[in-house]
Amino acid sequence: MLLAEILWSLTATEILRLTKSDKVIVEDYAKAIISRIELRDGVVKAWKLEIILNHACALDQVPPAQRGRLHGVAIAVKDIMDTKDMPTEYGSPLYKGYRSNSDASIVAILRKAGALIIGKMTTTEFTVLNSGPDTTNPHDPNRTPGGSSAGSAAAIADFQVPISLGTQTRGSVIRPASYTGTYAMKSTFDTISGAGIKVASLGFDTVGYFARSIEDLELITEVLIISPEKSIQGEPLEKVKVGFVKSPFWPSAGPGTKAAMKKAAEILRNYGVFVEDVKFKDQFNDSGTLNRMFEVVIVTNAGVSLYKDALMDTEKTKMHPDVLKFVEKASQLHREEVRRAFGYYAAIRPLLDKLAVEYSALVTPSATDEASLGLEDMGSPIFNSAWTLMPVIQVPAFVRPNGMPVGLSIIACRYSDRHLLEIAKILSGPLMKEGGWQNRLVYTEIDLTTENYHE
Amino acid sequence: MLLAEILWSLTATEILRLTKSDKVIVEDYAKAIISRIELRDGVVKAWKLEIILNHACALDQVPPAQRGRLHGVAIAVKDIMDTKDMPTEYGSPLYKGYRSNSDASIVAILRKAGALIIGKMTTTEFTVLNSGPDTTNPHDPNRTPGGSSAGSAAAIADFQVPISLGTQTRGSVIRPASYTGTYAMKSTFDTISGAGIKVASLGFDTVGYFARSIEDLELITEVLIISPEKSIQGEPLEKVKVGFVKSPFWPSAGPGTKAAMKKAAEILRNYGVFVEDVKFKDQFNDSGTLNRMFEVVIVTNAGVSLYKDALMDTEKTKMHPDVLKFVEKASQLHREEVRRAFGYYAAIRPLLDKLAVEYSALVTPSATDEASLGLEDMGSPIFNSAWTLMPVIQVPAFVRPNGMPVGLSIIACRYSDRHLLEIAKILSGPLMKEGGWQNRLVYTEIDLTTENYHE
Repeated sequence: MLLAEILWSLTATEILRLTKSDKVIVEDYAKAIISRIELRDGVVKAWKLEIILNHACALDQVPPAQRGRLHGVAIAVKDIMDTKDMPTEYGSPLYKGYRSNSDASIVAILRKAGALIIGKMTTTEFTVLNSGPDTTNPHDPNRTPGGSSAGSAAAIADFQVPISLGTQTRGSVIRPASYTGTYAMKSTFDTISGAGIKVASLGFDTVGYFARSIEDLELITEVLIISPEKSIQGEPLEKVKVGFVKSPFWPSAGPGTKAAMKKAAEILRNYGVFVEDVKFKDQFNDSGTLNRMFEVVIVTNAGVSLYKDALMDTEKTKMHPDVLKFVEKASQLHREEVRRAFGYYAAIRPLLDKLAVEYSALVTPSATDEASLGLEDMGSPIFNSAWTLMPVIQVPAFVRPNGMPVGLSIIACRYSDRHLLEIAKILSGPLMKEGGWQNRLVYTEIDLTTENYHE
Repeated sequence: MLLAEILWSLTATEILRLTKSDKVIVEDYAKAIISRIELRDGVVKAWKLEIILNHACALDQVPPAQRGRLHGVAIAVKDIMDTKDMPTEYGSPLYKGYRSNSDASIVAILRKAGALIIGKMTTTEFTVLNSGPDTTNPHDPNRTPGGSSAGSAAAIADFQVPISLGTQTRGSVIRPASYTGTYAMKSTFDTISGAGIKVASLGFDTVGYFARSIEDLELITEVLIISPEKSIQGEPLEKVKVGFVKSPFWPSAGPGTKAAMKKAAEILRNYGVFVEDVKFKDQFNDSGTLNRMFEVVIVTNAGVSLYKDALMDTEKTKMHPDVLKFVEKASQLHREEVRRAFGYYAAIRPLLDKLAVEYSALVTPSATDEASLGLEDMGSPIFNSAWTLMPVIQVPAFVRPNGMPVGLSIIACRYSDRHLLEIAKILSGPLMKEGGWQNRLVYTEIDLTTENYHE
């Protein structure tokens, strides 16, 4: 098989080796990716609007010595992040055709590092709805890819691009990654600037990214986060201590998630890792209160961030009624409850840090179960919400009898993003080897693609 | 004296009465304001770049029944807030001539309410430096107006516009208001969207506004904040209970601030208000720790928000070395200290709310003293930092023997912005009557202006 035929299937780390040494030019790589997208987007429907190729040739002109750390790597961008050369519609008919004349901070940083910003990914309306785009799960087009970073997850799972950007308010990065069998990382809250990204909830929204290897997660982290702390490297498994957190939401876990948690603990124990169950303490071990407090904080924040949009939608015809309802609901919350919710939420964060510091990492479900059938319901974030300020890596290790992936979340305390990457590398070795998941799309489709090349 | 000659000196509430009933057209009002600015900006230097008049005529075309709540009111905008029809330079040479093609959320909301967005106000580089613009204090051009919302404060004090917008990370609204003898309000954190406003510190930055009356603060609050809670109205002074908080920084208070706090307590007691001193409790009553924790949080946040800018300034010649240092310092902080600082800061907020709930309002210094001589040092925010998540109204009640104003802050718990407005109205009655401050600029200069009209 010719290298040119499989360029689209490479990870970012792999393609960098080729483009940095001029073995592959960015233009050819970009064309390979476009071919893959053209082949697959009719089924997966992860992309919005035009795809941009014109920067590829410009990147090829950069002398090797001046090439950035992400030279030529194709990166797809969730369509709530401003891009100066493509429309940004925030998943909303209100912003149909809207173009910002500046890049979101994260997009500007990636371009500066030489990345090829190639197109925009589907999402739900302002990311606050739980349905909307007709994006499908590449492993079963009858299933949801999860939301709200639907297109970003699906495009990675489907080998269309090696890296994509998402955002997570509650579980919008980690859950779709679990549903589509990809790696994903969300960084510590506000370690990557959200400037130029549409806000849903100021206190929750965090940038994340999807990839098909932990090395690629590390690659992009090092570009985006200033000086992550030094940490362990290559720790032997016998020295690793992992806390398994079922959380107060455990009764909501489906068979896939239950099996994954059980199997993960077994695998890690077999490899010598010290594993123990840990619980949320005291008042935080109450799923009803946790849910309500999160709800109050998010409705309050979303009411503020969507207020302007609701005013601009003068006829109230362009925004979904459920989105407009956020503003209404926010105005009706009792202020005493709002203060209590923010206080509750502020108090849980240091406690979760404290819990995380006692272990090399925590492990918790990434979703209630495998991706469900149908595109209407994009899944529940209840297992993600509590961790949304901490760095989280989703590892796609497990598989259901029907072939769908189920992942788990590996978590460290705030500002330990680099430590988390190292520990996730260590733990994902045995988990990926024994867990059972393998993304078979690239093998089942390789011939199709080759055909496509020779048409 | 003709009405046309003093239009520029009216409060927003006053001008609204005239423009809504077509007694004054917006075009004439705008021209009056331009004249005032032209007369005074050579001394005060509060404005950036062009002043916009072309919307005034459009507003005059709006039929009276369709006029917004701020119809024709001239509003000046701090130059870190995006305006689609004027450059936005963030106080930085790096953004010289930069124009966003969309309005910041707050600007869009105000335009929608009929406001005349008239120009941009000076600020410091990305708001993080403590010097920069040559803006002067209208009451003494040899003194600082305070920063970082320097132009916004000076233009209000100097009767150039009735309302201006600012932002506060630590004390950038309340302190310049105290220095220039204006009213100002900063809202509860994240009750007004910061979309389209350059971020300094994501967890601290709050929108605020300056005006020459509490009624005007209320007017703009009602446009910007969704459904503020119902509250007391016209509470008799005998039922009001005020906690005076000298805070652990009291040793830094100068004679002006000490005298203001003493006199305020006396005045309020004389009017029957129950006044008592309250203290920060336990570990929060330590100025050294408070300062260091704030420093760590803000450096961490600013490092993130300025990272892109530092990368774009490839030659490192356009950003001030002290601004670039934020990114460097952020990368050097020990992560354990960063976690501790965020935890400390999260813990103090509910405690301050709890303190505030026990009183009708809290009263605390707005600045260490009157505005100091010279334009290089724009003053210290140490009395403001702790309150920066809570709604605060600065009342310009007191005067120094040299004629400079000194104000005090009235504070309520989070999400009680409407309550705060009511209690500030009640308390400012006696404080303004007995405190001694009166803005004499309008009287000393009225003849000059009249002359200017007849030239």
